[in-house]
Amino acid sequence: MQPPPDYEKMFHPQRIAILGVSPEGGNVGLANGLVLALQAMRYEGEISPVNPKGGTFAGLNILRKVEDIPGEIDFAVIAVAARLVPESLEACRKKGAAGTEILSSGFSELGTPEGISLEQEIREIASRGIRVIGPNCFGIYCPKSGLTFMPSPDLPRETGPVAFLSQSGGMASDFASIGKWMGLRFSKVVSFGNGADLRDVDFLQYLHDDPETRVIAMYVEGIKDGGSFFETIKSVAREKPVIVCKGGLSEAGQRAVVSHTASMGGSRVIWPAILRQVHAIQVQDMQEMAQASLAFSLLPERVYHGVSVIGGGGALGVAACDAAESFGIAIPSFSSDLKSRIETFLPKPGSSAANPVDVANPFVPPQILKEVLRHGAMDERIDLQIVISLLYHYKALARAMGKPVAAVTPYSELADVIADVTKETNKPIIVALPNSKRGLEDLDIVEMMERARKLLLEKGIPVFDEIKDAFRGIGHVNTYYGYRSTAHE
Amino acid sequence: MQPPPDYEKMFHPQRIAILGVSPEGGNVGLANGLVLALQAMRYEGEISPVNPKGGTFAGLNILRKVEDIPGEIDFAVIAVAARLVPESLEACRKKGAAGTEILSSGFSELGTPEGISLEQEIREIASRGIRVIGPNCFGIYCPKSGLTFMPSPDLPRETGPVAFLSQSGGMASDFASIGKWMGLRFSKVVSFGNGADLRDVDFLQYLHDDPETRVIAMYVEGIKDGGSFFETIKSVAREKPVIVCKGGLSEAGQRAVVSHTASMGGSRVIWPAILRQVHAIQVQDMQEMAQASLAFSLLPERVYHGVSVIGGGGALGVAACDAAESFGIAIPSFSSDLKSRIETFLPKPGSSAANPVDVANPFVPPQILKEVLRHGAMDERIDLQIVISLLYHYKALARAMGKPVAAVTPYSELADVIADVTKETNKPIIVALPNSKRGLEDLDIVEMMERARKLLLEKGIPVFDEIKDAFRGIGHVNTYYGYRSTAHE
Repeated sequence: MQPPPDYEKMFHPQRIAILGVSPEGGNVGLANGLVLALQAMRYEGEISPVNPKGGTFAGLNILRKVEDIPGEIDFAVIAVAARLVPESLEACRKKGAAGTEILSSGFSELGTPEGISLEQEIREIASRGIRVIGPNCFGIYCPKSGLTFMPSPDLPRETGPVAFLSQSGGMASDFASIGKWMGLRFSKVVSFGNGADLRDVDFLQYLHDDPETRVIAMYVEGIKDGGSFFETIKSVAREKPVIVCKGGLSEAGQRAVVSHTASMGGSRVIWPAILRQVHAIQVQDMQEMAQASLAFSLLPERVYHGVSVIGGGGALGVAACDAAESFGIAIPSFSSDLKSRIETFLPKPGSSAANPVDVANPFVPPQILKEVLRHGAMDERIDLQIVISLLYHYKALARAMGKPVAAVTPYSELADVIADVTKETNKPIIVALPNSKRGLEDLDIVEMMERARKLLLEKGIPVFDEIKDAFRGIGHVNTYYGYRSTAHE
Repeated sequence: MQPPPDYEKMFHPQRIAILGVSPEGGNVGLANGLVLALQAMRYEGEISPVNPKGGTFAGLNILRKVEDIPGEIDFAVIAVAARLVPESLEACRKKGAAGTEILSSGFSELGTPEGISLEQEIREIASRGIRVIGPNCFGIYCPKSGLTFMPSPDLPRETGPVAFLSQSGGMASDFASIGKWMGLRFSKVVSFGNGADLRDVDFLQYLHDDPETRVIAMYVEGIKDGGSFFETIKSVAREKPVIVCKGGLSEAGQRAVVSHTASMGGSRVIWPAILRQVHAIQVQDMQEMAQASLAFSLLPERVYHGVSVIGGGGALGVAACDAAESFGIAIPSFSSDLKSRIETFLPKPGSSAANPVDVANPFVPPQILKEVLRHGAMDERIDLQIVISLLYHYKALARAMGKPVAAVTPYSELADVIADVTKETNKPIIVALPNSKRGLEDLDIVEMMERARKLLLEKGIPVFDEIKDAFRGIGHVNTYYGYRSTAHE
């Protein structure tokens, strides 16, 4: 039996070797990109680039051999040709590295005897004490330590409660990028590629105990050992939500999985059933995964039965009701007393004070919304409120007034109002910010809406593009805390 | 029996009266917004604003009475208080208007006896010869004549094959706005609100014969006469695709429908079944409706059985396969001969020449994609090709080179290559342009990608954000032309 991996050293290394960095003027490879990315992220530890050619890159001297690095290393990034990987790994092991990420591809995913045998060599070296992430991966993004993926020099250093595990490097870096603007903040993100040594189950066990992680999201293509995979999820899901996106459930998808990460897929029928059994939350794509993660990050841990919907106009209210019902959430009609009190604030005609509340036009001032939200929260059947804000309509106003759209749109006041009412009523408010105007002539709207999103997120208010995304997110939270409240194990 | 409406005069009026335009310095209402919108759209006909107060607005003299307009009018826009609508309508009728759009609300949607009775008056006047769109609507957008909705001064004058019908004004103006950047071009868009006189069935019959309309999309909340509604769709769908989004299929949604457009909803079970029977294409929301409309607009009319997918990387290839299967579309594996020929163009390792083709990295030059696409088209099982282009990754390159992202991204070359191969192979190519980077720091990416979209659309190439949107669009086209090929009536 191996000792457990020293994850602390792997996620927060002080001294990193990077193998395969080409000298200035040579071919720029993966390793060069990673050096630049780490510098851009202001990684505070020591970076030792290695290449037999020597030379310099990005202000660093390139050492010719791992053995030339003075002292020990904590972690290594290996991005050399596949056939050179085993000896590089062995050198890093001897240098005391607790772990490595192997970015190189050309292993079992090729399906060739040579690739499979090289991966077997990696596994053998790993069993002698150096733990391996990869090969054929993008590695680790850990905002706390400043580690990042090869193509991602621009991720935030701000930490948060979401962890993400993925075989696919593309999905891992995309998810981190989506999270950046959507408001997810991460504890650890790991792309483990072929998973020759450390895999989903290992990281799940680690994240289960990791105090910095509250929400675990995973993109899964194939698994090695179904029994331990699902058992581990079941045990982790008792304490933290585990959100799973399973790719490759179709026939052609399974074929693609094999050439992508060399693992076995599974069936479209069995997966959803088992995931339900182990109390995981299944999502269909990365957008839904990000939305679910946002809801789990920012909403208090409970089931939300009744929701009020304010703003948006008639048809969006109708869409809200349809979405709510499909996720088992109620939009209870307000009592006639509450209705008449809300009516006093609304412009007439064209408004409706029932739930959903149609405020008749998109220019209703935030102070009016504040009163409506305060009153909506008085209904004890309401656990959460949703505001649909059609900020893009302010462009027409800006145009009429000859001003920039950001100058006439009260998004900052809106954010204040929503934060205030959330605090005052102790019921969370979600904002939906749909935008039908995204063309080249309307980039000012896009920018203004991203400013609005950022401001709301900074105040801890979850923001979704579409109303149905918001309801689906709440639906996942409800499913999970429903499991938790009925589990007697 | 009334004579059929003079739609020509209603959609292409030369002389319009606009009732309810406040004079300069007064309260700016709906009618003022519409005058400005028509001017911004460069509507070429004559606009006569009317208001008992007189005065001027936007360079136009406001007449005190409809009767003061010299000569006849073709069309009128009524945006006065609800109780004044009947007499205004009667005045327009006497002035020879073939039709009106009544933007005012305060009718049957209120559920009050007064509102219902006012709407009945409208219906009676309409039966005497002036046809009515509305009340409680946004009216007509007709790019050919320059008519537009109240809040939409910025819609294109370019015409196209898509017609859209909607009770909801918000949905109509949003759909026109979404269409603008997504690449939909319209023949006619009508928001008919409460539908006191002209409704869905009337416009469907007109669009059926309208040579400018090839694709009909509808947002429906409730219907007046189910029999004629579905019969009409059935007859229209024999010649043109009819895409239907039905809002308000939930219990709460139905309640919201009543207060929104005062019509009856329907059941979540019955609607899909009947829509299938009449060969309509049902979609779940406005995004899906826009995507379906784009596919119907730009793809040749047929069923697409086999598709090849190029680019994107492993996990997106897997997602493509899953999406394809769920819409009944095949992604056939290339023959080993074709595979080895495609392999010669791809970077190694990390690429895969099977279908989906994984080009290993997002920087593969368009000229390489050209060769892959040419070869993919040689497989006779391939009816259509999809390119997934991750242009946002060029930001990292731009950063490294110290250049703007638009300067290093070969989107223009990509558009040329795709247009060339489409022409050469006679098999359509769709481009998916996902973007995981949308935050304030990445608006340069957003802009570059909108430029790419515009360029591709100008060459007739359909562009979708996500790969699953592309497959769902193709799926709808397949469903419809499947109906057409099996219908024997």
